[in-house]
Amino acid sequence: MMENEDFQVEIMAKKGCDEELPMSVSAKSSVGFDGVSQQLQPDNVNGHRGEIHGEKPMPAEDSYGEQTIEGEAIDPPERQRSMSMDGRLRDKRFDSFKKTWSDRLERRLSSLRIAPQELDVEANGIRVTETEAVPAEHRYFDVLEGPGFDTLRTSEVSVLPEDKKWPFLLRFPINSFGMCLGVSSQAVLWKALATSPAMRFLHVSLTVNLVLWCIALALVCTVSLLYSLKIMCYFEAVRREYYHPIRVNFFFAPWIACLLLAIGVPPSVAVDIHAAVWYIIMAPIFLLELKIYGQWLSGGQRRLAKVANPSSQLSIVGNFVGALLGASMGLIEGAIFFFAVGLAYYTVLFIILYLRVSTNATLPKELHPIYFFFVAVPSIVCLAWAKIRGEFDYVSKIFYFIALFIYFSLAARVNFFRGFRFSLAWWAYTFPMTAAAVATVEYSAQITNTFTRSLSIGFSAISTFAVIAVLVSTIYHAFVLHDLFPNDISITIAVANTKKRSKLCKKLAKLRSVGSDMRDTETSISRGNVRVLSSSFSSDRV
Amino acid sequence: MMENEDFQVEIMAKKGCDEELPMSVSAKSSVGFDGVSQQLQPDNVNGHRGEIHGEKPMPAEDSYGEQTIEGEAIDPPERQRSMSMDGRLRDKRFDSFKKTWSDRLERRLSSLRIAPQELDVEANGIRVTETEAVPAEHRYFDVLEGPGFDTLRTSEVSVLPEDKKWPFLLRFPINSFGMCLGVSSQAVLWKALATSPAMRFLHVSLTVNLVLWCIALALVCTVSLLYSLKIMCYFEAVRREYYHPIRVNFFFAPWIACLLLAIGVPPSVAVDIHAAVWYIIMAPIFLLELKIYGQWLSGGQRRLAKVANPSSQLSIVGNFVGALLGASMGLIEGAIFFFAVGLAYYTVLFIILYLRVSTNATLPKELHPIYFFFVAVPSIVCLAWAKIRGEFDYVSKIFYFIALFIYFSLAARVNFFRGFRFSLAWWAYTFPMTAAAVATVEYSAQITNTFTRSLSIGFSAISTFAVIAVLVSTIYHAFVLHDLFPNDISITIAVANTKKRSKLCKKLAKLRSVGSDMRDTETSISRGNVRVLSSSFSSDRV
Amino acid sequence: MMENEDFQVEIMAKKGCDEELPMSVSAKSSVGFDGVSQQLQPDNVNGHRGEIHGEKPMPAEDSYGEQTIEGEAIDPPERQRSMSMDGRLRDKRFDSFKKTWSDRLERRLSSLRIAPQELDVEANGIRVTETEAVPAEHRYFDVLEGPGFDTLRTSEVSVLPEDKKWPFLLRFPINSFGMCLGVSSQAVLWKALATSPAMRFLHVSLTVNLVLWCIALALVCTVSLLYSLKIMCYFEAVRREYYHPIRVNFFFAPWIACLLLAIGVPPSVAVDIHAAVWYIIMAPIFLLELKIYGQWLSGGQRRLAKVANPSSQLSIVGNFVGALLGASMGLIEGAIFFFAVGLAYYTVLFIILYLRVSTNATLPKELHPIYFFFVAVPSIVCLAWAKIRGEFDYVSKIFYFIALFIYFSLAARVNFFRGFRFSLAWWAYTFPMTAAAVATVEYSAQITNTFTRSLSIGFSAISTFAVIAVLVSTIYHAFVLHDLFPNDISITIAVANTKKRSKLCKKLAKLRSVGSDMRDTETSISRGNVRVLSSSFSSDRV
Repeated sequence: MMENEDFQVEIMAKKGCDEELPMSVSAKSSVGFDGVSQQLQPDNVNGHRGEIHGEKPMPAEDSYGEQTIEGEAIDPPERQRSMSMDGRLRDKRFDSFKKTWSDRLERRLSSLRIAPQELDVEANGIRVTETEAVPAEHRYFDVLEGPGFDTLRTSEVSVLPEDKKWPFLLRFPINSFGMCLGVSSQAVLWKALATSPAMRFLHVSLTVNLVLWCIALALVCTVSLLYSLKIMCYFEAVRREYYHPIRVNFFFAPWIACLLLAIGVPPSVAVDIHAAVWYIIMAPIFLLELKIYGQWLSGGQRRLAKVANPSSQLSIVGNFVGALLGASMGLIEGAIFFFAVGLAYYTVLFIILYLRVSTNATLPKELHPIYFFFVAVPSIVCLAWAKIRGEFDYVSKIFYFIALFIYFSLAARVNFFRGFRFSLAWWAYTFPMTAAAVATVEYSAQITNTFTRSLSIGFSAISTFAVIAVLVSTIYHAFVLHDLFPNDISITIAVANTKKRSKLCKKLAKLRSVGSDMRDTETSISRGNVRVLSSSFSSDRV
Repeated sequence: MMENEDFQVEIMAKKGCDEELPMSVSAKSSVGFDGVSQQLQPDNVNGHRGEIHGEKPMPAEDSYGEQTIEGEAIDPPERQRSMSMDGRLRDKRFDSFKKTWSDRLERRLSSLRIAPQELDVEANGIRVTETEAVPAEHRYFDVLEGPGFDTLRTSEVSVLPEDKKWPFLLRFPINSFGMCLGVSSQAVLWKALATSPAMRFLHVSLTVNLVLWCIALALVCTVSLLYSLKIMCYFEAVRREYYHPIRVNFFFAPWIACLLLAIGVPPSVAVDIHAAVWYIIMAPIFLLELKIYGQWLSGGQRRLAKVANPSSQLSIVGNFVGALLGASMGLIEGAIFFFAVGLAYYTVLFIILYLRVSTNATLPKELHPIYFFFVAVPSIVCLAWAKIRGEFDYVSKIFYFIALFIYFSLAARVNFFRGFRFSLAWWAYTFPMTAAAVATVEYSAQITNTFTRSLSIGFSAISTFAVIAVLVSTIYHAFVLHDLFPNDISITIAVANTKKRSKLCKKLAKLRSVGSDMRDTETSISRGNVRVLSSSFSSDRV
Repeated sequence: MMENEDFQVEIMAKKGCDEELPMSVSAKSSVGFDGVSQQLQPDNVNGHRGEIHGEKPMPAEDSYGEQTIEGEAIDPPERQRSMSMDGRLRDKRFDSFKKTWSDRLERRLSSLRIAPQELDVEANGIRVTETEAVPAEHRYFDVLEGPGFDTLRTSEVSVLPEDKKWPFLLRFPINSFGMCLGVSSQAVLWKALATSPAMRFLHVSLTVNLVLWCIALALVCTVSLLYSLKIMCYFEAVRREYYHPIRVNFFFAPWIACLLLAIGVPPSVAVDIHAAVWYIIMAPIFLLELKIYGQWLSGGQRRLAKVANPSSQLSIVGNFVGALLGASMGLIEGAIFFFAVGLAYYTVLFIILYLRVSTNATLPKELHPIYFFFVAVPSIVCLAWAKIRGEFDYVSKIFYFIALFIYFSLAARVNFFRGFRFSLAWWAYTFPMTAAAVATVEYSAQITNTFTRSLSIGFSAISTFAVIAVLVSTIYHAFVLHDLFPNDISITIAVANTKKRSKLCKKLAKLRSVGSDMRDTETSISRGNVRVLSSSFSSDRV
């Protein structure tokens, strides 16, 4: 099965800042053909900690040990709750996210030694037979609610304490790279304003570009450093972000930010960029795309119709930014390669986003800013094609006008972007607005008249204002209100509570006399699909 | 919520031909996140008429008063039926559709004065608490059946008497502008036949173009006049047509007809058209598109997957007709703008129409003619692009051949277009056929040989014959059989009859002992979603 | 109804190798608007054989007679099973697939004579009133399971004996033409390698092309001959393959193989091909497309969202292969016509394949090779456009790079193409790989450097190796293991077993007191839609 390949955890050398021994191993998980695991895996899941430390396994400890690196924690909610009253234990909860490579090595080794006899112990335990090991990546769709996949279902119990503030790094999400996109694209805009012949009458100095570029560089370095620390300290949390259907798109953001830094590099810093830079930055983008677009194709749980949402456009836009840089460096064939791949998947994504089969409800208000990505992609397509062709031809114009129309269209729905509190998602406004402004500046270089010049100035002003406003808000929320990075509920998912399920099963068993032909229905419901049942109703309704 | 913005009814100055006081006000409606209103709104809905006229509110009067301007009429069916036996009252039913701006002003003012004490009165009424105020625009999907959304569900009670012929203007639908498209495109065809160098051997006189153009102009004026009268007299009916998922596309038709008139203008009438004409005609098209394409994007009840049907292509084709006129007037950038927007949304729509997620069943036979719009769009795309580029290049040819293939494909399925009675929908044959003929004439100007000339003559003959046949049928049905404009059931929807629902709820309550986990299912069913349930079944079946 | 047009069986002159009298006539079938037949047709279906032979109709004979030419066999499972124990009768089962045109004529005539009195006999039979005549083409979706539509549901009883090997021709599927595609495209590749200026350094001889072309020609002739025999002997089986949602796409394969033979013709055999050849080969492709794309458009049971699967790309690729040949022969306009049609439907199909609404589950492992068609289409598009334009321009490059990326993307998921046994489906690897190799050779002729040359050699080597490996496996399985052509279960479908349904109905009748509003649901379920019910659940889950 394709979906399982990520589970093959390499045993690597010890790194990072963890000091505790691991107490759980990955449960072998099996994914049924319908993408739902139906196999119970009592072996190797539980009780290791007790054995390793030579203690009698205590219930609380035991349930703690169930939070595995692989995400298949088995955690009856009663215990979880009793645990949260136990301060000493509660603090240790973060440890399961701290575990990194070295831990795995030790764990693997110890499990090899201990596993056989443990298997017998576990087989006797009644609790384990009730549980079901589901790979973390599939759990997201079961456990998280809302099209943003950011609220834990009420039936779920968080792995981490929700009533306490977590360590900073655990709360620092991959989305933070959105800030880098916003600021580094501003550097590109002011470089375009300073060098475009149509905008010469403004006498914009390249110094603005230089200052912005330095800020952007500092921001990219800071965020990268922080996130690197997170990778080292809480690798499990990063892994969970990678499996999150919306977050995964933001793994493109660091590389796109680097591309933007290379495009917006001030002439005083560098005139020619070595071709190797392009290859180095495009390599991770290419590999991520092979992985993600491949999942879209081969279907299953992570097929496009299931995961498509406006933020998926982030996984596309890298192609065009890369093509833009490549073409400006003279690497035309490479630029066309990424342009072609991007175009194919952009067409698919654009249409599927209009179709939105999977997300019956509209996105939550808090995520409305990511609708602006609809403006970003055609703007960058237009710029990239113009650079590949060497002229702003009909194709560029068509994409530019599409971006323009969508911009107007979104601007006309002011209510759509009002009435929700500030969050990191607001940075999604800045990059698309800036991209549209850059495209307008390029367009006005081709069609130079008062209208296009006004448009350029207008869009540039709006985007700069947006970046400043969002930046100030970010600083205010980060350093004054200290609420920029709330607890990251999305990564706290545990294995489904099968106790509740079995109750449902019993109730449904009363209905079984109706006829064995209804078994299909029951099976679906007893798998906890009542949600699915109701959403398949509402899918027709909405 | 985006969907609610149309409800903000401006209070405007009195106009039109109504002489009765209004007797209802708009119910404040709330749309839940799933697009289903769950809030009961007993206040301000009912009984105003009685208060205003100083009469003791009679039951019949009362139920009458429930038909509000906003479309949230609350009308228990028993009363409705007793009313229809009361001749005096029945006639007044049309009044609720007559109400215009002035009425609203008065109503608002009076409701401000009377509302508070009424609220108490209403709170005691048992009937009101059973009703549910749903915005008219959402009601269409609940109340109307069939993919054509033109039959009222059996559980629904019409607001207007179904057993009596309504006033002419109420029966005069926006679809009537389809006639204008058919005839004015004929003027364009005969202009092309007269001026195309490849067709010179036919010696077609420009007089034919002149005559057709005058007929088209007269038709456009007549239909516009009649519809303007409808806007003035029955604004509520127009508003309901605007919210109808198929009808709304025909609001583009008047402007497209104007564009066609401008394209087909005889050289003897005018040689150059002032650029302002193009801007004036394109402005409403642009605004309609901002509105409608925006709804497609932001999801919810009116997202594309829900409302897409072959007539949606009418909301696209205006872009290309506009681009064609703009390019022929030299407004290249404006033309490319509309071309680009059209192309983006045409791609989306074309694919979604092939997918048809929402309409599980095929279209009713009576609407099969609108399948011919599949021919119209690529034909016009081909013409517009040829005009923008100044030559019939590969892109134009690709779109021309797509139109040609779809034409053949539809022509091959003769049974598909047979066996249903004449209606205004038949005019959907004429415009696409004529557009294909014009494109063929243009193509044969590029590739001139016997085959292309024969094709041009053949398609021109077929389209002219079709227009004549449909025109004669229309005149016959309009003036002899008097059945061209039947009662327009689609606009008569009232608020859902919750009485029946609650019966269903009681019956379902027996099942409740099965287990509280089935609550989701029940809720869906008790919301009257039995239809949805069955259609979610058939969606997989069909 | 469009879907019924294929049922109008022409009465033709006797041909073929059947020697038995027919014993059944086609049941008049009616398709409800939702594509589900609801009309019981007891007349003319049953008991003919008994009458013709002057025998007292025995139960076993009777059930035999129910297997009609039209595919509406009515076959209670008990009888079927009792029959399978009766050796003499079992052998005769194949006869119903042998029946050809002459039989129909006779059957029609005899039914005219015998029908009236039989109708009375049948009307008394209790069995017939329980049955439901459904057209074979709709049955596929009800009876066959899995996205490959190749397993009979457990509730179904096969018309043909499953425990015995059938006659060879009955087991010889249309898929066999896949072999022709693989080998004839190799001839094209080696012609390209021998003639491309960029590959001149390899000194590939045209003799390889000649040898491969001769092998391909022999293979095409052999397979065509065998399939012609099948058409003559078992026309019913061919008809059932034509209605099969996956198989129908392979009806394009013979013509595509002919096109490839014409493209890869060795210069020593022919230099110029007469234009008539192109028209003759493209005619059946055009007619098949009119039929199949028309079904996609008009919706219903065979609409695209329902039948789309990776093999649907076979019905598209013919357009581009045809365009490639046409353009190389100078028939530019014809080439653009097929290119345009192909492009339109390829865009639609590509996106719908990513969406996969209908097939909730992923394809069975055995069909994974057909994912490689994703590589074939853009490769051929690139070649066809380069030939039309006369140069390898941006459009060609874009499609080439899309093919390249998908190739990499599939190659990266090695697990996806491992772990299933050999079947004819493996030939789906060869044609796409060869097409990609040809496109790479063409690309390297444009951009000649070490990298592109290595890529050309690599892809050519892989594709040649793949063809050889699959060819050897095929020969081994065909002539040594004798398991290349297993019993073709897909064509054995009978009419649904309504007995089981009625049991379900009775059980559900208990629920009927819940309320008449649930009737829709019941109707759906009693039609045997429990499968649909569960799949509408899983569609949201998976």
